[in-house]
Amino acid sequence: MGKRVAVVLAGCGVYDGSEIHESSAVLVHLSREGAEAEVYAPDVEQMHVVDHLKGQPTQEKRSVLVESARIARGNIKDLAKLDVQRLDALIIPGGFGVAKNLSTWATQGKNCSICKEVEDVLRAFHAARKPIGLCCISPVLAAKIFPGCELTVGHDTECEKWPYAKTAESIKGLGCQHINSQVTDIHVDVHNRLVSTSAFMCSAPLHQIYDGIGKMVQEVVRLA
Amino acid sequence: MGKRVAVVLAGCGVYDGSEIHESSAVLVHLSREGAEAEVYAPDVEQMHVVDHLKGQPTQEKRSVLVESARIARGNIKDLAKLDVQRLDALIIPGGFGVAKNLSTWATQGKNCSICKEVEDVLRAFHAARKPIGLCCISPVLAAKIFPGCELTVGHDTECEKWPYAKTAESIKGLGCQHINSQVTDIHVDVHNRLVSTSAFMCSAPLHQIYDGIGKMVQEVVRLA
Repeated sequence: MGKRVAVVLAGCGVYDGSEIHESSAVLVHLSREGAEAEVYAPDVEQMHVVDHLKGQPTQEKRSVLVESARIARGNIKDLAKLDVQRLDALIIPGGFGVAKNLSTWATQGKNCSICKEVEDVLRAFHAARKPIGLCCISPVLAAKIFPGCELTVGHDTECEKWPYAKTAESIKGLGCQHINSQVTDIHVDVHNRLVSTSAFMCSAPLHQIYDGIGKMVQEVVRLA
Repeated sequence: MGKRVAVVLAGCGVYDGSEIHESSAVLVHLSREGAEAEVYAPDVEQMHVVDHLKGQPTQEKRSVLVESARIARGNIKDLAKLDVQRLDALIIPGGFGVAKNLSTWATQGKNCSICKEVEDVLRAFHAARKPIGLCCISPVLAAKIFPGCELTVGHDTECEKWPYAKTAESIKGLGCQHINSQVTDIHVDVHNRLVSTSAFMCSAPLHQIYDGIGKMVQEVVRLA
């Protein structure tokens, strides 16, 4: 019997939801590891809708759960119904939706609040010592909730390859330890059972991002 | 210098656009092959918008180009501006969007019409003897335009594993040859330089669909 892994989405699209390629990579790698993915999203409205062609917000309103269902091919459940006892691990892909719909990180940084259902789920897996996989921007959720934990979002010095390096500084500002890593690397916080990788925090070829997420998923399943 | 490959999308989501995991797999594999993907979509309105949670159409209106930009992370161009001379190959992922936005296959089957820009692009790559990669439902576009060509959409006998097997019969009805294949296989029409794989036509684990698409992409790049 394969491990049951909850995957929590935040919409569908890098600028206002879950990053599509990160989410797909998580699901492909879970399938290859023989794990059973159960996809969840909160039943809330998106902070906003971004026209991904123009890169600008529109006046539309969309539901995080309904848009996440695009990635899940309809096979998705309301995050409020997640039962941690039935599940062996948790993975949250990145994308601005994590910072806009699952938390207020996009507007408030390290002073953000986290969506109650998301915080409850993170705390429940952590308390049960079930592993949590994070990538791209989603490690900030753990940084906010689990002070002192070890995470990677890539590098802490901004350059062309690492345009979002300030996130690493914010993680340190929350009292956590940031570990610099390459895009194909992961960091494992053994004590907190957190597995993180930088993914699209790095301006890297897509297959390298895919491979880094693969390592993260493998380690999460191994720990489960 | 890597090969330049046009990837034509039809929206974002299996039921009214491009299938997200097929599209992502195409882009990951192109990256791994060292090819440069150029993503295009027609600047037209979607046939309709499907709520992927309920599986039912809504009253919303969305643009194929703007929604496809979610998969392309904003890096997408109007299909009308595609210049075949600058490109070495063409790949069209599947999803109902191919049958709803790129053609009228969803409502008219083998009597469908194909969006003019899509037909022009397919004919231009074919005439230039540049390879064309197709998966899931997108082989029907070639079946409609290139009579007598060889394609696979999986199996021609309906069962739990092959719920859309009637598509193979429709391809035969258009005077083409359908070759039965497994989800991790491809078929290469050497004469027409068409490479096809069944992808989500098969009820298979996601990583097998990913691997079949990988073989298709590798062969397209090799032929380019």
